Amino acid sequence: MENFDELKAFFTEGYKIYRRGISIDCAIFGFEKNSLKILLSKNAILTKWSLPGGFVKTNESLEDAAHRITIERTGMEHLFFRQFKTFGDPQRNLVQEIFDDSEFKKITGFHVPSDTWLAEQAISVGYYAVTQITKSAPKADLFSSECRWVDLNQIPQLAFDHNKILAEALQSLKIHLYHYPIGKNLLPEKFTLKEIKNLYEILSGKPLHSSNFPNKLISLGLIEKTNEKKNIGAHRAPTFYTFNNQVYEKMLQEGFVLV
Amino acid sequence: MENFDELKAFFTEGYKIYRRGISIDCAIFGFEKNSLKILLSKNAILTKWSLPGGFVKTNESLEDAAHRITIERTGMEHLFFRQFKTFGDPQRNLVQEIFDDSEFKKITGFHVPSDTWLAEQAISVGYYAVTQITKSAPKADLFSSECRWVDLNQIPQLAFDHNKILAEALQSLKIHLYHYPIGKNLLPEKFTLKEIKNLYEILSGKPLHSSNFPNKLISLGLIEKTNEKKNIGAHRAPTFYTFNNQVYEKMLQEGFVLV
Repeated sequence: MENFDELKAFFTEGYKIYRRGISIDCAIFGFEKNSLKILLSKNAILTKWSLPGGFVKTNESLEDAAHRITIERTGMEHLFFRQFKTFGDPQRNLVQEIFDDSEFKKITGFHVPSDTWLAEQAISVGYYAVTQITKSAPKADLFSSECRWVDLNQIPQLAFDHNKILAEALQSLKIHLYHYPIGKNLLPEKFTLKEIKNLYEILSGKPLHSSNFPNKLISLGLIEKTNEKKNIGAHRAPTFYTFNNQVYEKMLQEGFVLV
Repeated sequence: MENFDELKAFFTEGYKIYRRGISIDCAIFGFEKNSLKILLSKNAILTKWSLPGGFVKTNESLEDAAHRITIERTGMEHLFFRQFKTFGDPQRNLVQEIFDDSEFKKITGFHVPSDTWLAEQAISVGYYAVTQITKSAPKADLFSSECRWVDLNQIPQLAFDHNKILAEALQSLKIHLYHYPIGKNLLPEKFTLKEIKNLYEILSGKPLHSSNFPNKLISLGLIEKTNEKKNIGAHRAPTFYTFNNQVYEKMLQEGFVLV
């Protein structure tokens, strides 16, 4: 981050563009063949890692803001994302850690004005997203020097209350697996039952009964057989399945109960 | 509502006590022997029904505020409650409908000042709660003339975006049935398997497979046998069950997957 003029303008005049007292934090999960990672930003001022986040423009809905932020950070337009919880302890203050950090002026060359619009109690609306790592292009924001995928087993101490927010996001993802069609954008258009089961096992972090995944997805009409088979060797040709788009869109709105 | 001085003070000086730009809306479901109802307040100024709600004091967490509001409206200390979604369309404005209503001054004798702290974009954090109707004592708030239980099949057009908030609350309740121990405060300390199954069927609004409810609650250790039986006639004495408090508290925090 080199553009400290832009950062200074944000601290002093950001309220002209953004709503006061509210931020968005995004737990963006990335799926790879055999693992699930989380996208972290290195906060350039705190030199701590944090969840990517941002603010809500005065003409935006919360969803619009979360969508914009996830697209900016990942470079991906189509990802599954959902709001999961809002955090609002009275101690939450977005710049408190910055004020306490005497390095701030040394790095940026200016003091944050004590009456900045950011020095207010702030609630944070948490969204999680799930996307493919190989297609993503992580990009740092105004406050960050770096943005990259980190293994879920190697999460450091994060800035603010972000470890707590991440834990809640993960819990919501694991619950939503049973109620929303999360997998679609993480698989190729055609996939085998073994491939979709593998995806759900990685998302849930545990082995799943095949009576639930993927058979119940079939009985819901969410995924269906194609006429094609995958050729993986002599006498082995599992059928390709695909998502039914109409059922997918309906279930994205209404949810389902996978039991 | 007769105390318009208090209402006026709220409009002009409420920001000294409450956080700006944020409100709480509560979908409080009431369980009776064979039905589920929702607690509605009649807004005295709009003469429309709405979900009970309120504001967050500057020293309160969102949970504390939602807890205070649900206790004030229901008279019940112990109820299951959870945050489910935050609503923040840019058009949300808590007093817009009031400003548009020329009846306001006629009823109250004063104009809402156009620069009131309430005339800002406001997000609303939605909580739902589930409680027993027979033990509750609904009580109207400062803005309401009436507060009572209404059948879910007879919900009128509500004020603001409350029909949408209620629909989302109900969807969350039905999902959370499979992941959080919702039933405890709605049953007597000892209950039969038929009684707890009946409760979950009413909460979910549909018949449930007994392989899921209540057998899976037993296999999770959430409910367990007592040494007592219910005497309901010759040769019929179903065993009483009870919640395991230790497992209950753990699952309230961590959730479970009931599949």
